[in-house]
Amino acid sequence: MNTTPSTCHTQNVAHADGVYRVVIGHSVLPMLPDLIPDTGNRSRTCIVTDGRVAGLYENSVSGILKHAGIEQTASFTFPPGEKAKSFSILKRLLYHLARHGITRTDCIIGLGGGVTGDLAGFAASIYMRGISHVLIPTTLLAQADSAIGGKTGINLPFGKNLVGSFHAPVLALCDLKTLDTLPQRHIRNGFAEIVKMALLGDPALFEFLEIHAGSITHMRGRAELTHALIASNRLKCQIVEQDEKESGIRIHLNLGHTFAHGLECLAGYRKLLHGEAVAIGLIAATRLAVTLSICQKDVLDRLTLLLERTGLPVQAQGLNTQAITEILLRDKKNRSGKLRLVLPESIGRVIVVDDIDPALVTRCIDP
Amino acid sequence: MNTTPSTCHTQNVAHADGVYRVVIGHSVLPMLPDLIPDTGNRSRTCIVTDGRVAGLYENSVSGILKHAGIEQTASFTFPPGEKAKSFSILKRLLYHLARHGITRTDCIIGLGGGVTGDLAGFAASIYMRGISHVLIPTTLLAQADSAIGGKTGINLPFGKNLVGSFHAPVLALCDLKTLDTLPQRHIRNGFAEIVKMALLGDPALFEFLEIHAGSITHMRGRAELTHALIASNRLKCQIVEQDEKESGIRIHLNLGHTFAHGLECLAGYRKLLHGEAVAIGLIAATRLAVTLSICQKDVLDRLTLLLERTGLPVQAQGLNTQAITEILLRDKKNRSGKLRLVLPESIGRVIVVDDIDPALVTRCIDP
Repeated sequence: MNTTPSTCHTQNVAHADGVYRVVIGHSVLPMLPDLIPDTGNRSRTCIVTDGRVAGLYENSVSGILKHAGIEQTASFTFPPGEKAKSFSILKRLLYHLARHGITRTDCIIGLGGGVTGDLAGFAASIYMRGISHVLIPTTLLAQADSAIGGKTGINLPFGKNLVGSFHAPVLALCDLKTLDTLPQRHIRNGFAEIVKMALLGDPALFEFLEIHAGSITHMRGRAELTHALIASNRLKCQIVEQDEKESGIRIHLNLGHTFAHGLECLAGYRKLLHGEAVAIGLIAATRLAVTLSICQKDVLDRLTLLLERTGLPVQAQGLNTQAITEILLRDKKNRSGKLRLVLPESIGRVIVVDDIDPALVTRCIDP
Repeated sequence: MNTTPSTCHTQNVAHADGVYRVVIGHSVLPMLPDLIPDTGNRSRTCIVTDGRVAGLYENSVSGILKHAGIEQTASFTFPPGEKAKSFSILKRLLYHLARHGITRTDCIIGLGGGVTGDLAGFAASIYMRGISHVLIPTTLLAQADSAIGGKTGINLPFGKNLVGSFHAPVLALCDLKTLDTLPQRHIRNGFAEIVKMALLGDPALFEFLEIHAGSITHMRGRAELTHALIASNRLKCQIVEQDEKESGIRIHLNLGHTFAHGLECLAGYRKLLHGEAVAIGLIAATRLAVTLSICQKDVLDRLTLLLERTGLPVQAQGLNTQAITEILLRDKKNRSGKLRLVLPESIGRVIVVDDIDPALVTRCIDP
């Protein structure tokens, strides 16, 4: 370990097959070799990363592993972008693992954003019926969301994450230093998920974000961002620990996401970043809750103000929102054809509502 | 339920997410609607089957479901044969499920042999991160082996079942009547797995098979076959219940299988049926155990006699057995490069041996 991080927060997450650590801090990457659980003699690692992140961090991660004497196979690199969450890239990755003789005691390292984590985690969950993986999320979106909770998956033309698994990593290492190379739009992208966590379960965090949103999303407030990320992840860890496989409370994490997935599907996963779709989705969910008299209007106002302050979109523009209804009806949370949504009751409190009229939903996306 | 089965044996299997039932009997298919666990309002089923089994049993299963008022989507049919355990068929199946709007409360019914069960179970495990599936094995091989234990998977060019999951069915319904349409070679095929179970953990069953092998494999002894299948499945259920994810005792079930997978891979999954490869693998494992002085020679003699009596092969013919070494080294059970095998100590008792010289293994396959 050649660098000592200034501050480093560790959260343990228990799941069906064990416990893993979520480590959050600035410049914590060199801690990697000490944090990878030992899975046996002569175990090897395989870095999975996209072409862009490879250029930024592959050499340093690879060097850190080499320095610690951890064996590596050739890395697997794929083109950046949501399109990589596909059957064809998944197949290529699995062939890569088999070709390099990766065995059950070896470990995949997913280095990059949410796409990389979802893809690497899914491959780890099905290669030889499940091997270990470490996540090193390098975007705020991944650090605040996809790296926590063990959800993995790829997309089908019919919708996002329609194929996947629950497969917890053995470690999630969130180094805030990797955010230095991230465009501001991508900081906002992750910020939307932190807003979601605050809205669904942490009123104090929501108030904190209302005060510090500007400095956080403009990357001037490193300490504030760290605080917000730790608080958000603490809540997410608590929720996934209670309900690993989304049979109960974990569905709360889908606040705004049914709308978001529909919007992304409609936009072809391109025009809108996930967090931008989530921002619109949070607004739509809150507007729907207000319409249904579940929630006070001031929640919608505060949320709108918070999101607007960061520059996140609050309404879908240039999209055929009518077409969203059909997509919404395919959502995984629906129970045999019924539309089921998570809606806010107040800042920090949500409920699950069944049997919602799809027409009402469309009007809340495009009022 | 229009037919009452003469005898019907039920075994409960506990696993991480619940319990499922293995039901064995003659003409038990009409019990299906009563046995499918209720997963919610308006849940639907989707039959997955190959073209050959579709012609034999799809109409009756579909009719039984319809009669009971259980909704069905269009069935998914694929070409028969091991080649269907591929990425391309898996992808087609998952697209079929999404296209027909299958949701998390719906249920896939895998109707057919081991290939169908492995494929349907794997699709069920990853579609929407896991939905329910029922297995209706229609071959003795599937009834005695793949339908029990929740292993699913597809093949890669590098080896069998290199991609898959542990995903228990909600029900395995073994109707011995479906074996009436099975060629005798395929009865022997399943019989090899029953011999394996007896050799690894049930001396009384082994003796029973020594007496009744001829009548069972010639389909004259229906009662004897039923007895053997129930005893074999009872043992398998006990083992998978103790160790669902193969971190301990379950590895015993791989007796003969490392060799078998290697042989099948070499033969291109065609010339040799799985049970035939297992028969050769059991002999090879036992011969290796005798060579290593782990096991008495009379075990090899009794096993050879038993297998020969049924017409199962006891040695690899026309195969380049030298090439098997490289394939064996890719086996999932190996720990970071070491060759690990399950070997018999006596009738009904096995041990796991590590660090075996691959050259010795090759000589035991082709002495």
